Amino acid sequence: MVHGRVSRLSVHDVRFPTSLGGHGSDAMHTDPDYSAAYVVLETDVEDGLKGYGITFTLGRGTEVVVCAVNALAPHVLNKDLGDIVGDFRGFYRQLTSDGQLRWIGPEKGVVHLATAAVLNAVWDLWAKQEGKPLWKLLVDMDPQTLVSCIDFRYITDVLTEEEACEILRQSQVGKKEREEQMLAHGYPAYTTSCAWLGYPDATLKQLCSEALKDGWTRFKVKVGADLQDDIRRCRLIRNMIGPEKTLMMDANQRWDVPEAVEWMTKLAEFKPLWIEEPTSPDDILGHAAISKALAPLGIGVATGEQCHNRVIFKQLLQAKALKFLQIDSCRLGSVNENLSVLLMAKKFDIPVCPHAGGVGLCELVQHLIIFDFISVSASLQDRMCEYVDHLHEHFKYPVLIREASYMPPKDAGYSTEMKEDSVKRHRYPDGEVWKKLLTAQGN
Amino acid sequence: MVHGRVSRLSVHDVRFPTSLGGHGSDAMHTDPDYSAAYVVLETDVEDGLKGYGITFTLGRGTEVVVCAVNALAPHVLNKDLGDIVGDFRGFYRQLTSDGQLRWIGPEKGVVHLATAAVLNAVWDLWAKQEGKPLWKLLVDMDPQTLVSCIDFRYITDVLTEEEACEILRQSQVGKKEREEQMLAHGYPAYTTSCAWLGYPDATLKQLCSEALKDGWTRFKVKVGADLQDDIRRCRLIRNMIGPEKTLMMDANQRWDVPEAVEWMTKLAEFKPLWIEEPTSPDDILGHAAISKALAPLGIGVATGEQCHNRVIFKQLLQAKALKFLQIDSCRLGSVNENLSVLLMAKKFDIPVCPHAGGVGLCELVQHLIIFDFISVSASLQDRMCEYVDHLHEHFKYPVLIREASYMPPKDAGYSTEMKEDSVKRHRYPDGEVWKKLLTAQGN
Repeated sequence: MVHGRVSRLSVHDVRFPTSLGGHGSDAMHTDPDYSAAYVVLETDVEDGLKGYGITFTLGRGTEVVVCAVNALAPHVLNKDLGDIVGDFRGFYRQLTSDGQLRWIGPEKGVVHLATAAVLNAVWDLWAKQEGKPLWKLLVDMDPQTLVSCIDFRYITDVLTEEEACEILRQSQVGKKEREEQMLAHGYPAYTTSCAWLGYPDATLKQLCSEALKDGWTRFKVKVGADLQDDIRRCRLIRNMIGPEKTLMMDANQRWDVPEAVEWMTKLAEFKPLWIEEPTSPDDILGHAAISKALAPLGIGVATGEQCHNRVIFKQLLQAKALKFLQIDSCRLGSVNENLSVLLMAKKFDIPVCPHAGGVGLCELVQHLIIFDFISVSASLQDRMCEYVDHLHEHFKYPVLIREASYMPPKDAGYSTEMKEDSVKRHRYPDGEVWKKLLTAQGN
Repeated sequence: MVHGRVSRLSVHDVRFPTSLGGHGSDAMHTDPDYSAAYVVLETDVEDGLKGYGITFTLGRGTEVVVCAVNALAPHVLNKDLGDIVGDFRGFYRQLTSDGQLRWIGPEKGVVHLATAAVLNAVWDLWAKQEGKPLWKLLVDMDPQTLVSCIDFRYITDVLTEEEACEILRQSQVGKKEREEQMLAHGYPAYTTSCAWLGYPDATLKQLCSEALKDGWTRFKVKVGADLQDDIRRCRLIRNMIGPEKTLMMDANQRWDVPEAVEWMTKLAEFKPLWIEEPTSPDDILGHAAISKALAPLGIGVATGEQCHNRVIFKQLLQAKALKFLQIDSCRLGSVNENLSVLLMAKKFDIPVCPHAGGVGLCELVQHLIIFDFISVSASLQDRMCEYVDHLHEHFKYPVLIREASYMPPKDAGYSTEMKEDSVKRHRYPDGEVWKKLLTAQGN
């Protein structure tokens, strides 16, 4: 089915001035402008289909990721799409192992975010050419083809290609029923929209009350900047939602290991299901120590949105460092690398609860978690996907939430495409929105 | 002593076409063009002193690091140098924790390489204003001032500020004698210049024979691409140097964990002191498993040149994952972060054997390891610094090697300054050298 040669790759620096309203603010990212390096792939086929790829950023630095996308472009341009997806493992390896570029990674930070943007566009294009939403493309793929997209380098000590195939084969049982279940009821979500750190209590209360009315039952609150403030806000939100509903906490890497244990011991009375990102995303052994210390309090550790590749996830699983694994659609090397993480999580029996929010993260990651349920985990136990009510209006195929669940996308592709006018207006620094803001700031 | 306001930051993309001769080639980096993002800081003081900072790259991608340096520039410009070094911990934190930029790191990959380049320039300028070579500036600093340059975030579970001070205080004993010893005999080095993977056997033999004549006693050989080839080359070099001299092997991340153990078991007969970078630089637990498996064969594990920050080094030490720790002057956040690693290594009693080579890495890291001997480790046991005989001619204050030892630099600064003409000719893509090459390649 796939066809065409990649004839053009363009990349845009698109930023939304979210810092003006304190949206998305946490203990470490106090003034984020939700942004994206936005990739558009065109082919020489006259079907009008383009591939759109996104990686999420926070404003400054988007231009650095854009620069890295351009550095990767020669690996994509003039390639036949059939050759790319026909040897997707090889293509992934080519992007991530460029003999000169890998030095400034490898498979981490800016170059890996750029890899994600490029490969997300390839997956979007592939799914569009097949006329399926991405989750359905994956669900319909046979196990052998799925694993042929994965680079197993550096993870064969915990997951071989054969094991991965076997996991996928075993999960064939009941696939049809699970797909029907998803189409009927969707994938359960939780909301982070009520309790950003920058929100005053009145806003928090109002948003929380609205969310309860809308049927939300699981809530996340940002913590970590000030203990007394956290106690007040956690008490407020726990009182609002009552003892039965689920509360999660998120420190966004604010603490050192001993501090995390101490601080969370003091917040334990509010019965959080998990503490997310208690410390550095690189600290596997630190997360393991925190997990061990907090287990008796009934608090699990969750992390992943800044874990930079499958090697880190592998070790988090090996070290029993987390109870909830949070994949991200834009930090890992696209679907390819996330597939390997979903399979490792299944092997270790750790639930995947994706990170979302930002710009487009909800749109993208819903495909991965719906696929995970249908074809890998086959379970909703302890599982839910983050949801943030932000910026969906800029997407051509925005998420559809019904009764606090993600309803499976029906349009072909990876839901990555933004509205042309939104891109145009928010291009940095020359889009209309930024021209106005920068003029007002006197820049 | 320090004074002046940073009035200008410029950054250059400087590349040397080393791939043409196979210099620097290894199992993962087959065609490196040794390059640098080169930062120049100027102040408003009329003393003519500038700070030069470097981070090492392999060609493509240097432009991405340059872009990241420009993104960091607003944190440096118009700052008073006294304020910067007077609260160096705070300044380090400011660069690495920018609320928007940290998302594309944090403290890893492109943004951290850029941080290194900027901070290396600050240290060079500071040392120049003090009229001392950097190692001497550090040696003369009191423990309290030294630790005030370190950001202890994420490492306090293994090293607190108080412990760091105590280590430095204890190492005051015998400092003067060790400084004299360094000035008289230098710091022991080993050579990697003989056995790049791209060299034919005849070249290897000739270089090895010359190195023996020049008094070298420790040699490193690149391995990992092809086992039979490795056996042939290791036999050749071991026969050339004899059974008493030291041989190290370097796989540059080529293997998975089980493969590393298997492969090295087959190379054990050539008695390597260490195997360097057997697998992914992110795989702490993998390195620990390899260390455990190879210990009975008398082979230690060495790694560090691509370990992206102090949190990774902390864990490598915690997990007993290495027997030799290889700091790098340009991948970590400059002297500031390397100080924390030297102190952690001392606490765990693991010898530091720096990574060098590339462009300027020898020039820079010699300062750190000489300081380490005088003020921290106080030992040469199992210690040596890498040396590669490349590109020194482009530096204003090139390394001085005498009897296979690094002689302590005497000029003020961090030895980071390149010759103006070298920079001009090798600027990419508009320098004379590249104009010619690119024209010849038809670009």
